[in-house]
Amino acid sequence: MPDAPPRAVLSPAFRLVFRLEIANRPGMFAHVATVVGERGCSLGAIDLVEATPAVHVRDVTVDCPDEAIGAQLQDDLRRIDGVRVRNVSDRAFLMHLGGKIETKGRVSVRTRDDLSLVYTPGVARISRAIAEDPDKVWRLTIRQNSVAVVTDGSAVLGLGNIGPEAALPVMEGKALLFADLAAITAFPLCLATHDPDEIVRTVENVAPVFGGINLEDIAAPACFVVERKLRERLDIPVFHDDQHGTAIVVLAGLRNAAAVVARELADLRIVIAGAGAAGIATARLLRLAGVRDIMLCDRHGIVHGKRDDLNEEKRDVVRVLGTERRGSLEDALAGANVFIGLSGPRILSRGALRTMGRPRIVFALANPDPEIDPLDAAPDVDVLATGRSDYPNQVNNVLAFPGVFRGLLDARARGVSAEVELAAAKALAATVPPQVRSAEYILPSVFDRDVVPAVAKAVAAATRDAGLARKTTTAEV
Amino acid sequence: MPDAPPRAVLSPAFRLVFRLEIANRPGMFAHVATVVGERGCSLGAIDLVEATPAVHVRDVTVDCPDEAIGAQLQDDLRRIDGVRVRNVSDRAFLMHLGGKIETKGRVSVRTRDDLSLVYTPGVARISRAIAEDPDKVWRLTIRQNSVAVVTDGSAVLGLGNIGPEAALPVMEGKALLFADLAAITAFPLCLATHDPDEIVRTVENVAPVFGGINLEDIAAPACFVVERKLRERLDIPVFHDDQHGTAIVVLAGLRNAAAVVARELADLRIVIAGAGAAGIATARLLRLAGVRDIMLCDRHGIVHGKRDDLNEEKRDVVRVLGTERRGSLEDALAGANVFIGLSGPRILSRGALRTMGRPRIVFALANPDPEIDPLDAAPDVDVLATGRSDYPNQVNNVLAFPGVFRGLLDARARGVSAEVELAAAKALAATVPPQVRSAEYILPSVFDRDVVPAVAKAVAAATRDAGLARKTTTAEV
Repeated sequence: MPDAPPRAVLSPAFRLVFRLEIANRPGMFAHVATVVGERGCSLGAIDLVEATPAVHVRDVTVDCPDEAIGAQLQDDLRRIDGVRVRNVSDRAFLMHLGGKIETKGRVSVRTRDDLSLVYTPGVARISRAIAEDPDKVWRLTIRQNSVAVVTDGSAVLGLGNIGPEAALPVMEGKALLFADLAAITAFPLCLATHDPDEIVRTVENVAPVFGGINLEDIAAPACFVVERKLRERLDIPVFHDDQHGTAIVVLAGLRNAAAVVARELADLRIVIAGAGAAGIATARLLRLAGVRDIMLCDRHGIVHGKRDDLNEEKRDVVRVLGTERRGSLEDALAGANVFIGLSGPRILSRGALRTMGRPRIVFALANPDPEIDPLDAAPDVDVLATGRSDYPNQVNNVLAFPGVFRGLLDARARGVSAEVELAAAKALAATVPPQVRSAEYILPSVFDRDVVPAVAKAVAAATRDAGLARKTTTAEV
Repeated sequence: MPDAPPRAVLSPAFRLVFRLEIANRPGMFAHVATVVGERGCSLGAIDLVEATPAVHVRDVTVDCPDEAIGAQLQDDLRRIDGVRVRNVSDRAFLMHLGGKIETKGRVSVRTRDDLSLVYTPGVARISRAIAEDPDKVWRLTIRQNSVAVVTDGSAVLGLGNIGPEAALPVMEGKALLFADLAAITAFPLCLATHDPDEIVRTVENVAPVFGGINLEDIAAPACFVVERKLRERLDIPVFHDDQHGTAIVVLAGLRNAAAVVARELADLRIVIAGAGAAGIATARLLRLAGVRDIMLCDRHGIVHGKRDDLNEEKRDVVRVLGTERRGSLEDALAGANVFIGLSGPRILSRGALRTMGRPRIVFALANPDPEIDPLDAAPDVDVLATGRSDYPNQVNNVLAFPGVFRGLLDARARGVSAEVELAAAKALAATVPPQVRSAEYILPSVFDRDVVPAVAKAVAAATRDAGLARKTTTAEV
């Protein structure tokens, strides 16, 4: 048996549940308990699942100091004669068993009378009313509150193209947050195709049920094609969160960062590393917000108009930005005030960081490994933000998408525009009151309950101002 | 003012809510109240919606003796000087405001720790686990419990081709019943296409999220093509409820009807009127259940092999039934024991009914107007069933689809077969205990809580027996 390691702080994230087949012999369970203790882990609940004369099947909950020790304990248990590890689940897996969302009725069906109203024959009157006046679908169905979370599983988190089934837990998580934070009925649609035209046709075909489409984790450049075509063809908002959600939160954070360093946003010289979906959308939104000097960089350096290796989206954004300078990321950084990383781990060296001008703002948003280690960057920057939850100033799309869609649905939007996104970013920034704003507080907590209503209100108003709202007042039910 | 009609029993189905703009003058509301009383209606709750110096907008709830009187009251109110009827809603409409279903979280997200498990970064581990072992999608996502309710809105109730938006309330009703009766997460997908191949492609594309597909209210013959192709291409059950749900409930009712008249089901001579989706599926399932003599009739009479006007499905079913007789529906009925109407209103005359043999069983299922008025038929039949809720023996698909899909999901079925449907019908019939079975009790109530578990258990077992189950035991979590 190994020596007991020192006791560490136990995180609930490493609570494991072992399903063990334990031979029905005296002293067997005590043996298991000893092995658990010797690994420095502690026993929690023990449930009997099945019992035969020969074996007892038990679910044994164990808190482990960390994941590695949990794996070692599993090996220890496997080696015990008379014990079979049938299954091991940790808390993350247990939270996912059976999925994270469900559909429920909003009305109760207790009597035959109820049944005859919500289903045949009474529902026929509702259907007839909508057939006669199609606008009534916005009052009499879920459409006023429903969002499709659509992916093809081609660019999921940092995992790449893992396909629609493996993408489903992420989309369920998103639907769960829509429900929890904004009372939106969102449903995940993970598509078994990567063909942009087929994605477009599929979303067009299911659109009659939804008041908005949230595109998610679709790889570039397909994501641009899909969004553009869907926006042309549908009369509901289509919002690729990896692009616009990110851009909104970055802009909100940057507005407050600029205020902290007492500069106008428009006057900051900004370098964006990463010219994928998020980088391009962020560059566009910052330009719309008045920033004059933006250099977008990909792995080949500054994206400029003389390069012959650019895809359509990059050519378009260069035209908007008017970039003429050439050179590497490092060339771009010299003298810049802002680094926005939407790329990959550790591409920003301390040396390059120190060539930047002052004030110096760094958003190192690659997740889970940022463009520069926050502890390395901290001494040399004025404001620092990351995509991680274990540093201050987390740039998290959760700050944007629930409120954005809440506002779009409240306005029964026919579409969404960059002006609406701008309004969302301003409203999000404004949830941090000027008197408490600081270098370590440029964005609100994802649990701040004021965020969704504030963003939603601004989005609904901007949607009305842009002439994109079906519902032009807030009064009508 | 009209004379007050006699007070009638008030049904909540005719509770109306008038949104009235009432001039802000003394005595105006009293005037409204008087008009309501004079129509024999009674005032309920009164809510103030908006108030300006000139008008008060109020929601006035009124119980009316019937729908016609409600309409008259509306006219009366419109004629009052100083009152504008802005809107009138009845209870059916009110139950539909904002839709009948919603998605909710199955896990709570209260802390940053929770958030990091259900969404980024923790969810990446779940996605990775599924990418490595695709079978885990059945444990770690909603797929184990999710059903798509798919329609193109081409054959909705008795309303015909009203399109996807107008079909949505029906599909929501279905999803609501799935949730309420069988704890299934169902989501309506109303498609903006009538092209069978496009329907097939769309459902294939969204299939990774679902454990089963319920096709609904798709017109024949597209429904046959869509179902056949989807069954070939998908590894989850595809079940067109208008066909198979109806067939299951009819067979269950008929088994008990046969027992009531003390005959073997197989020996009954059966005429089915209506050779659409439901009629054809019912004929097939009755044949599989052992019935030898089945004549299927359409509007041109008996469907037989020498007719040159048959579509592919009718030719197929004639081959299965082996029908050689020719003639009209009336010719078929002479001497038959069973009439199953899946057609239209009042096509069965009392005269034709009386040419039938004994025992004599009539299922007049056209809805809301049956093939023969039940009160006309009753004196001349041994057992009578309808599709309506206001007579005994209601043949209602709600008796089948929740339990069928519960069982299919429980078995994680790769598909569904006629044998599974047969098992569902037997289990449904068996929920009426022999000792209480009678001519007026051949099918259980739709509110009988034993029905879904009984049908589900039989369906799961039959799915395993047919080799269609991913999950071959009931023990494993």
